[in-house]
Amino acid sequence: MTKNEAAELITSRRVEKNLTWQQIAEAIDSPLIWTIAALLGQHPVPEAKAKKVAELLDLGPQVTSALCAQPYRGTLDGGAPADPTIYRLYEALSVYGPAIKEAIHEEFGDGIMSAINFKVDVTRRPDPDGDRVVLTFDGKFLDYRW
Amino acid sequence: MTKNEAAELITSRRVEKNLTWQQIAEAIDSPLIWTIAALLGQHPVPEAKAKKVAELLDLGPQVTSALCAQPYRGTLDGGAPADPTIYRLYEALSVYGPAIKEAIHEEFGDGIMSAINFKVDVTRRPDPDGDRVVLTFDGKFLDYRW
Amino acid sequence: MTKNEAAELITSRRVEKNLTWQQIAEAIDSPLIWTIAALLGQHPVPEAKAKKVAELLDLGPQVTSALCAQPYRGTLDGGAPADPTIYRLYEALSVYGPAIKEAIHEEFGDGIMSAINFKVDVTRRPDPDGDRVVLTFDGKFLDYRW
Amino acid sequence: MTKNEAAELITSRRVEKNLTWQQIAEAIDSPLIWTIAALLGQHPVPEAKAKKVAELLDLGPQVTSALCAQPYRGTLDGGAPADPTIYRLYEALSVYGPAIKEAIHEEFGDGIMSAINFKVDVTRRPDPDGDRVVLTFDGKFLDYRW
Amino acid sequence: MTKNEAAELITSRRVEKNLTWQQIAEAIDSPLIWTIAALLGQHPVPEAKAKKVAELLDLGPQVTSALCAQPYRGTLDGGAPADPTIYRLYEALSVYGPAIKEAIHEEFGDGIMSAINFKVDVTRRPDPDGDRVVLTFDGKFLDYRW
Amino acid sequence: MTKNEAAELITSRRVEKNLTWQQIAEAIDSPLIWTIAALLGQHPVPEAKAKKVAELLDLGPQVTSALCAQPYRGTLDGGAPADPTIYRLYEALSVYGPAIKEAIHEEFGDGIMSAINFKVDVTRRPDPDGDRVVLTFDGKFLDYRW
Amino acid sequence: MTKNEAAELITSRRVEKNLTWQQIAEAIDSPLIWTIAALLGQHPVPEAKAKKVAELLDLGPQVTSALCAQPYRGTLDGGAPADPTIYRLYEALSVYGPAIKEAIHEEFGDGIMSAINFKVDVTRRPDPDGDRVVLTFDGKFLDYRW
Amino acid sequence: MTKNEAAELITSRRVEKNLTWQQIAEAIDSPLIWTIAALLGQHPVPEAKAKKVAELLDLGPQVTSALCAQPYRGTLDGGAPADPTIYRLYEALSVYGPAIKEAIHEEFGDGIMSAINFKVDVTRRPDPDGDRVVLTFDGKFLDYRW
Amino acid sequence: MTKNEAAELITSRRVEKNLTWQQIAEAIDSPLIWTIAALLGQHPVPEAKAKKVAELLDLGPQVTSALCAQPYRGTLDGGAPADPTIYRLYEALSVYGPAIKEAIHEEFGDGIMSAINFKVDVTRRPDPDGDRVVLTFDGKFLDYRW
Amino acid sequence: MTKNEAAELITSRRVEKNLTWQQIAEAIDSPLIWTIAALLGQHPVPEAKAKKVAELLDLGPQVTSALCAQPYRGTLDGGAPADPTIYRLYEALSVYGPAIKEAIHEEFGDGIMSAINFKVDVTRRPDPDGDRVVLTFDGKFLDYRW
Repeated sequence: MTKNEAAELITSRRVEKNLTWQQIAEAIDSPLIWTIAALLGQHPVPEAKAKKVAELLDLGPQVTSALCAQPYRGTLDGGAPADPTIYRLYEALSVYGPAIKEAIHEEFGDGIMSAINFKVDVTRRPDPDGDRVVLTFDGKFLDYRW
Repeated sequence: MTKNEAAELITSRRVEKNLTWQQIAEAIDSPLIWTIAALLGQHPVPEAKAKKVAELLDLGPQVTSALCAQPYRGTLDGGAPADPTIYRLYEALSVYGPAIKEAIHEEFGDGIMSAINFKVDVTRRPDPDGDRVVLTFDGKFLDYRW
Repeated sequence: MTKNEAAELITSRRVEKNLTWQQIAEAIDSPLIWTIAALLGQHPVPEAKAKKVAELLDLGPQVTSALCAQPYRGTLDGGAPADPTIYRLYEALSVYGPAIKEAIHEEFGDGIMSAINFKVDVTRRPDPDGDRVVLTFDGKFLDYRW
Repeated sequence: MTKNEAAELITSRRVEKNLTWQQIAEAIDSPLIWTIAALLGQHPVPEAKAKKVAELLDLGPQVTSALCAQPYRGTLDGGAPADPTIYRLYEALSVYGPAIKEAIHEEFGDGIMSAINFKVDVTRRPDPDGDRVVLTFDGKFLDYRW
Repeated sequence: MTKNEAAELITSRRVEKNLTWQQIAEAIDSPLIWTIAALLGQHPVPEAKAKKVAELLDLGPQVTSALCAQPYRGTLDGGAPADPTIYRLYEALSVYGPAIKEAIHEEFGDGIMSAINFKVDVTRRPDPDGDRVVLTFDGKFLDYRW
Repeated sequence: MTKNEAAELITSRRVEKNLTWQQIAEAIDSPLIWTIAALLGQHPVPEAKAKKVAELLDLGPQVTSALCAQPYRGTLDGGAPADPTIYRLYEALSVYGPAIKEAIHEEFGDGIMSAINFKVDVTRRPDPDGDRVVLTFDGKFLDYRW
Repeated sequence: MTKNEAAELITSRRVEKNLTWQQIAEAIDSPLIWTIAALLGQHPVPEAKAKKVAELLDLGPQVTSALCAQPYRGTLDGGAPADPTIYRLYEALSVYGPAIKEAIHEEFGDGIMSAINFKVDVTRRPDPDGDRVVLTFDGKFLDYRW
Repeated sequence: MTKNEAAELITSRRVEKNLTWQQIAEAIDSPLIWTIAALLGQHPVPEAKAKKVAELLDLGPQVTSALCAQPYRGTLDGGAPADPTIYRLYEALSVYGPAIKEAIHEEFGDGIMSAINFKVDVTRRPDPDGDRVVLTFDGKFLDYRW
Repeated sequence: MTKNEAAELITSRRVEKNLTWQQIAEAIDSPLIWTIAALLGQHPVPEAKAKKVAELLDLGPQVTSALCAQPYRGTLDGGAPADPTIYRLYEALSVYGPAIKEAIHEEFGDGIMSAINFKVDVTRRPDPDGDRVVLTFDGKFLDYRW
Repeated sequence: MTKNEAAELITSRRVEKNLTWQQIAEAIDSPLIWTIAALLGQHPVPEAKAKKVAELLDLGPQVTSALCAQPYRGTLDGGAPADPTIYRLYEALSVYGPAIKEAIHEEFGDGIMSAINFKVDVTRRPDPDGDRVVLTFDGKFLDYRW
């Protein structure tokens, strides 16, 4: 079983079982976006957590193995920007884009974060391990409305 | 004069004059990333602010006109994801990517925000005008080091 | 079952049952193009309407689930224009193009809307919720004729 | 002088002269979108109208000649859909997209027609010359707001 | 059954039954290239003709249905020219290219129409329904010869 | 001077001098489409004919040299079909497409050959030098009409 | 059975049976590269030869039919050069490249023909049927060596 | 001066001076195809030969320098095959394609080497320095004939 | 069984059996990266080694055959640089990239070699068989850390 | 002056002045590959070193400014692999590829590092600042030889 096949199984079983991503994240005591990304195949999942997920969703050991496997990450095809500083943002979008989409839909329903009624901020967060870049996208939620 | 030509003039003149983007943003009383993005050609600049920028950098009225003009936005070519929820993130990167890059270099020096030592968060920020999606990328700064 | 697979089933069953899209739209009390787009997989369908559709077409609960699921939207590959104002038109075509095609064929038969004997109009429609852009494409129908 | 060079001259001169596209369209007694599209190089302009435009904007006979010339139409690159019914919509966007963008900005300011708060309609308009497909896109205007 | 699957069945059954495309075209009283194109999935086939084809080739009702269905036309990917006048030639090649290939092989055997020993002509053919453009490609047949 | 630069000069001078392509073709006693294609840079022009063209259009010896030079042919980018039988049709379109466009506009005005109200025929023309494939595209002319 | 499926069967059966391409070519009395190319699906194989191949490799009549069928030739995707003189070289590589690869491996083992220690020659070979271009690539064989 | 600019100067000056590539190759005592490829910018030219070429064609020392410079080789864009054995053939075409084209036109006139009336051969040529792969393309010359 | 299918089997079986790539490499007495690359399908494996691998992993003779077969090498699509000196580096990455990835994960865990905290060196290593280029990439390991 | 324009000036002036990259690297007391990459525009150069380079090569202050400017890095277009572990290798090639090419030509002359007579190694180098991945490519030098 590939990580993609596992992700499809998890995605549909989660809906059938009426479990939110948030509930699964809590069950394995992991951050929400990390959890969604990992279950969609973008991170290897530690074995204990993988087993917990399989149990929650009544899925077999093949799913567990697939979750634990080392992934080939990324979901975007073509058009990557060459500059490394910009590329890292693109890579973040490639690895976490679908997880962000799931989290938006879970929290807000069917719609998007506007990129028009929108602002961006970049700040420094000091950290003894090396300071961090904190980039914030802040956009109005727009729901699909006919 | 196109908006791109104006952006190149502004970029080199800013370095010669030893002005930071932050100083320019303060001079026109605008947010940092908005300012950089606008001066790189991604937003029309209100006339008074455009004149102020031209004055600060000793640039002529053609630059002012170019800054005021309505832009064709976007800096990424090809490979756009089709799903609208994910596309808005890609569009934000296309419109603001170079501004974010400039801000990172101004604040941290030559380097990148790591996408490996990195976390993402999505939260809801209530707003009377419509609640907002707040997406935070938080990555360690890595400087180019040979 | 993916939304694509559901769409294929619906498409062929609809023909076998001799139902028009218009009849299905009326049965679920929804606008025509929204209905076609949704059944082709571009919108999540509210559960009651999804069940009604499955019933009309004698399709099983897997189809219902697939119709209710949150979609990855879009049907066009590559070549998206970068400018956000133009992109939204392209996105509309990507999301609704096949539905428009179906509606043209249902109403007019096998053929196209001419882009040569053709005119476009853009107007403002005041709306208390925020004024609206109304874009009209008006082209002569041309039927395939050998 | 190419049609593109003429379009750039017209675009910047129009702003300097403080003329709206609407005023130019009225001056040559032509529909708004046709006028913008034609002046951006997507249609050959009848000689009398081309001269009138050059006069209004104080531009020389080379601009007139360029406006009259038969164009190579289209502004989108790559990714065209193969199906002729859908392609005609794409072609309309390729030929008229920038004109629609200009008209939106002239009427509404800097912003977009939402593709989320949005609806589409397809109807038949009887016409003795052959019935017409009338396609309406109706989306809320969203202005760029930081 | 998709139109592509029907086309593959028809293609192989035709060879087994030793029927030429010409014979099939005559059997359904339709022009040769139209017939090949339609059976390869580029046109909807009227029901009576579709049944006749299925009968001739001993194929089942699923093939008949697939032949009758409204197609997504076109066989070329990418690289479409933007100009509408040139695009229509490209579209003709996209829709009819494989049918022309089949007709050349049926009439001449394995080989090509030379594009070097070749001439082109464009003429007007008056027609009460609107005059017609008649474009003729005339090239020497070259057979594969080792 | 490149062949492209020569083609641009010829194209604009021809309009200024009010000469049709047909008149130029007659002046150099060559077929119409060959003449347009050659003057647009797709064939080397024999020296005497190149001189005659330069004379007719009051252009200098650099144009003559450019016309005589061996071309890199072709005007289409990307998306070429791999099969040699189909490729030759694509190559013909790549080499002669702009010439056909010019001839259509000269004969019919601004518009297209319909690919919908359209038929194709393939026949064999016996020739002592080797039989020829004759491919005819026959489509209704549609003029741009707003 | 498609020609590709037949090619895969032939390729693996040939290895199991320990037959060289040279032996198969001799068995059907055909040139080596033609034989490999044809069995990989790039040429229609005359029926008697196709049967002989199927017999040699213990393959069924479906393989024979697939070998006899008229192919869609070519193995390279995208990036074809537009100029016809250069394109014919590219087409030769597209049609015969895999056959040349097989012949190199059969004769020399795992490795390549160097394009660095390499020379090219173009000569004319008179022929009553029309003179021929003879193009010779002569490169040192380099074997994979860790 | 870039190698491309030098190549353009050499190409046009050669025609003005009525010198064949063969004569230039003899003047610098080098093989024909190597000479053309090198002068088109695909090889660094030893200084004495570069001077000789500049002298023959009355070109200045900047041309000499450009010819001597180390090139970025290759003329084909995109679509390179991944397999190294096949890639080397593609690379040979990328580096030597235009030189082969020039040599064909010089020897045969305007036309192509047929890829239809065509054969390929691969043989081993023993060599004390390591055996060599000799690949021969042998195709009928076809001249452009209207 | 294709080489890709064999690679997938080997990859999952290796994890189930808790064998490292290093252990497999030692078992067949081959270098680590060569071994991984070969088992992922990038090299033909000598028969004795292929059998040993199949034995170690309890896989059948079809896997052995697939491992022995001559591969179509390469894992990168599109965007290959044309210059041969740079291309060889790209080819090395195309052939060995996944093997390097596996080796990094096996030795260091889930993470990357930084390209920012990174240096490169090129040196000459004399060798009687011909001197060698030794290229060293030296980058800090960064582990995925949320 | 852009960084690319500065790089072109440096490249040609270096040859005229008969300076090796090694000599320049020593003059600014920096590693060879870093120096070449930086002068080709891939790194910002500290001001003192940039001045030293300009002095050595008799170039003006505009070159110094260009060298100091923050770059948009990268030289490869399209086809980037999505997986971050493999991407970092691709990025290293994109940033340092031309520098490696220059270093190979300076040390070995015109030729390539073979990717066939070639081996790869990945090792861990302990480092108090975090262990490092050391990747070694070791290939035979092959000189261009006709």
